[in-house]
Amino acid sequence: ATPLAALAPHARRFGLHPLQTFTHDRGPEQLDGAWGAVTAEAPAAARIAVELAEALGLRPFRIDDGMRALYHAGAVMASNYLVTLRRAAGSLLDAAGAPPEALDPLLRRTIDNGFALTGPIDRGDWETVERHLEVVASVEPELATAYRALALLTAAQASRTVPDELSGALA
Amino acid sequence: ATPLAALAPHARRFGLHPLQTFTHDRGPEQLDGAWGAVTAEAPAAARIAVELAEALGLRPFRIDDGMRALYHAGAVMASNYLVTLRRAAGSLLDAAGAPPEALDPLLRRTIDNGFALTGPIDRGDWETVERHLEVVASVEPELATAYRALALLTAAQASRTVPDELSGALA
Repeated sequence: ATPLAALAPHARRFGLHPLQTFTHDRGPEQLDGAWGAVTAEAPAAARIAVELAEALGLRPFRIDDGMRALYHAGAVMASNYLVTLRRAAGSLLDAAGAPPEALDPLLRRTIDNGFALTGPIDRGDWETVERHLEVVASVEPELATAYRALALLTAAQASRTVPDELSGALA
Repeated sequence: ATPLAALAPHARRFGLHPLQTFTHDRGPEQLDGAWGAVTAEAPAAARIAVELAEALGLRPFRIDDGMRALYHAGAVMASNYLVTLRRAAGSLLDAAGAPPEALDPLLRRTIDNGFALTGPIDRGDWETVERHLEVVASVEPELATAYRALALLTAAQASRTVPDELSGALA
């Protein structure tokens, strides 16, 4: 996150970061419908940035220059770690003899449903959570740390108290 | 994952698990296009399960009865932990003053692009990865463990060697 000050002495300096992932296989239409983070100091600069964003098909929002690293950390968590999740979950399905691509309609519907939580942690079904942890640690031990950390975070977000006998396995 | 044996003494017993997340706000069309895991022993039972799956609009695949826990652990990782990621990343954007829903076109495109990895870990930009870890740990410390675990797993999946000076921060 290079600060706006790097553009000194320009007075109407601004930053415009498209919140999207891009591939060389597609063209500029990849910007359509994505959001764009505008950082600017002078009001005149912000107006130009917002106009540019809209001309590019982006939905602009403003953030403070000092918040760009936090904003970008969130963008990485969503986009890059979704790739990580899909690869990890796909390798579990593959090890179970199931086609990894069977996960994709599930992932799309999870977005369509507004990220409503379902599944064993939502139900407080800790026996199932524990069996999942065991089988993951046994078959794909390199996934165990991330699997556990995400189980704990999911429980915390859902305000679910992890039972004592499982806390040790999750820590 | 209740075993098929629970259905004894039925000879043509089978299981059919739709790989989908459901909401009460929608109807049976939620099955359309999802995949369905078939477990069966007798060939006649498997035929019935596959026919039932297709009648329901599911794309059937077979897995062994003993693999259902592993398969389900993978399904949970994809679907439930995507919810976790979105909530966590959304709270980082919120803390940065950005709208969390700006992540959604990014998540959809990540799926459309076949889960191609982009971003700082893919580029080997460890300075940025380290700054993200610092800002997440500082602003939302409850996210730090999962963020670190996913960074390490992402690097391993991409066959990227994490530099020594960052290994400590990531462990």
